[in-house]
Amino acid sequence: MALKSLSNVDITFLGTASAQPSTTRNHSSLALRLNGDVWLFDCGEATQHRIQKSVVKMGKVQKIFITHTHGDHIFGLAPLLSSMLNGAGGVMPGQDDSRMTVDLLQQPIEIYGPLGTRAYLRASLTYTHTLVDAPFVVHELRMPSDPQDGDLTDRPLHRAESAHGRNIPQVNGVWTNIYQDEVVTVSAAPILHSVPCVGYVVAEAPVPGKMDPKQYIPHLKRTNAPMSLMSRLQQGESVTLPDGTILHGPTRRKGRKIVILGDTYDPSPIVNIAEDADLLIHEATNAHLPGVDPNTKESDTYESVEARTKSRGHSTPQMAGAFAKRIRAKKLILNHFSARYSSARCSEEAKDIMSAIQSLASKEYCHEVICADDLMTVDIPLEPSQ
Amino acid sequence: MALKSLSNVDITFLGTASAQPSTTRNHSSLALRLNGDVWLFDCGEATQHRIQKSVVKMGKVQKIFITHTHGDHIFGLAPLLSSMLNGAGGVMPGQDDSRMTVDLLQQPIEIYGPLGTRAYLRASLTYTHTLVDAPFVVHELRMPSDPQDGDLTDRPLHRAESAHGRNIPQVNGVWTNIYQDEVVTVSAAPILHSVPCVGYVVAEAPVPGKMDPKQYIPHLKRTNAPMSLMSRLQQGESVTLPDGTILHGPTRRKGRKIVILGDTYDPSPIVNIAEDADLLIHEATNAHLPGVDPNTKESDTYESVEARTKSRGHSTPQMAGAFAKRIRAKKLILNHFSARYSSARCSEEAKDIMSAIQSLASKEYCHEVICADDLMTVDIPLEPSQ
Repeated sequence: MALKSLSNVDITFLGTASAQPSTTRNHSSLALRLNGDVWLFDCGEATQHRIQKSVVKMGKVQKIFITHTHGDHIFGLAPLLSSMLNGAGGVMPGQDDSRMTVDLLQQPIEIYGPLGTRAYLRASLTYTHTLVDAPFVVHELRMPSDPQDGDLTDRPLHRAESAHGRNIPQVNGVWTNIYQDEVVTVSAAPILHSVPCVGYVVAEAPVPGKMDPKQYIPHLKRTNAPMSLMSRLQQGESVTLPDGTILHGPTRRKGRKIVILGDTYDPSPIVNIAEDADLLIHEATNAHLPGVDPNTKESDTYESVEARTKSRGHSTPQMAGAFAKRIRAKKLILNHFSARYSSARCSEEAKDIMSAIQSLASKEYCHEVICADDLMTVDIPLEPSQ
Repeated sequence: MALKSLSNVDITFLGTASAQPSTTRNHSSLALRLNGDVWLFDCGEATQHRIQKSVVKMGKVQKIFITHTHGDHIFGLAPLLSSMLNGAGGVMPGQDDSRMTVDLLQQPIEIYGPLGTRAYLRASLTYTHTLVDAPFVVHELRMPSDPQDGDLTDRPLHRAESAHGRNIPQVNGVWTNIYQDEVVTVSAAPILHSVPCVGYVVAEAPVPGKMDPKQYIPHLKRTNAPMSLMSRLQQGESVTLPDGTILHGPTRRKGRKIVILGDTYDPSPIVNIAEDADLLIHEATNAHLPGVDPNTKESDTYESVEARTKSRGHSTPQMAGAFAKRIRAKKLILNHFSARYSSARCSEEAKDIMSAIQSLASKEYCHEVICADDLMTVDIPLEPSQ
């Protein structure tokens, strides 16, 4: 059986600000594109507005992963779902409305998040009379201290909400393979923040190695073996030819691993499943930038800024860099900046500040560091064949 | 006693689209500025983003009036409140956070809306762990068919929510003076839509007439009467001078009356309190524009478009114009356009379409008609002295 595989994988940052939006950074959201499919990670207010301005197609969104239920990460979810699924507005009694009878057997939009994701969404859709013409399902990642069943709300299911939303318990401190298909798995683990928060690990299955047809075709021709064997070889299988020759397909390559963290002052609990990531996306809310950021307080030191940042549940660029080093990530993208750090595109001063933030992370981490900017798209290539 | 009075009154349209946002029109919201104070009417998603781009100061918002709880009119309320009141993000246990002890005796931000406004807001703030460092209160306008007490949710008050939120019953079909001070009153009445919906009437108290000092000062001087009598005359009082002369202050002028409607296919129930408005803001979601809008369906007629528009609970420009005529409004602003009608600023085609929409309303109504555009500000002057 030929495995499906991914060609293009990229990430578009839809919002890169913490807490407040600015004119250059919106609340948290990013879109992972796997071939054409779109998976969103977080969905702050006005995520749909950012999607309209981006290369991401709203109609392609299939899954949404919420790291935690703080408003700057979830306030855009109900409005996005309303727009994606034609849910806004109503009809007068006695008029036809296809949204009144949603086929719950259809493939639903899948939403993953911590306890409260379902309650937030159900309440938001219900109190606003939002209909929606296709089903959705909410799977919740339950912490050991959470109730393992129930919804955190007494409100009944929304009319378009599948009753098959799972409450997924932790096993050995992680949520393994909360989603899985032939090509990709998603696992998650808690990361430490001021409220229950999750990091996600998207891992691609091993992919076929690069194949040099010249190594195989002469043998197939010589033995009159069918050329269709090439596709089995491509998948890394070994094939015995009529004359007893054994051909070995190229060794499979490690698939891509992308680690997307929510807000955190310490993501240690995710280390085991995050190691050797091709890409780590880590928050860096606050930085100490004397001489660069004119708003730096005289009385502050790196230590005082780090202490204050941690007290709010957040990280500095150095903390992000140290974590990238710890898990041997191949690339680090910093994200979730205080709204006072404008996009580097908007002024020379902002450019210097973002460049200084990048340097702070690089002090702790010797591979590539990028500061995310709204509407930036970053490709995630496969490693070259070994 | 000298009445306070309003000098500048204007309205800034923050969002003028129905249902979906477009790149040129956001969801419903407008800001009424009374001197410097800001009262918002509706608060669709990304209202705070629009405020950032407008002349409106978020810190000046004191009251928010919701016409109905459809998402395109309310999804921005919890995020706006979070930003206005410093509610986003949390702190680690054991750290100080002033938001944990809100002084509920402070003047709260006042929010008015139909049943469900409180439940939406309470759920949205609670499930997202939103704190907020100042109090708010939600007053609900109860329809006769609504329960007259309770909240539509079993969730307890938010920690910053005043327990003094009123459930205001209708009396004779209207909600009279839901807010009242020396200068302004707000009343409301139901208007017909697919869900319970409200229109608001903001009425200014009679204002002092224009005063010609030459009419008074010679008499005051002649009789050695104190010049301070001028301020009583200014308020329209009559004053008797030492020699028995009676001076009459200028006749007070009618204050301004502004009628702001939510979504409706028939606002008749508000007629009595809306009559003789200086300004009517009325929705005009859909229009029949053959030869102007290239998306006009061949099979449509004005009648079929009106029937379809009404079946969704909405109005055409002609319906808005007819209502403006019915209440003898002095000016009509059309609002809440289908997102397919882009801002007139964005292309010649869009300009023609908006101009045609305006003309359709003008067929029914002979005074000034304006099509609202995002970030447009319209002054509301006093009538000249009679």
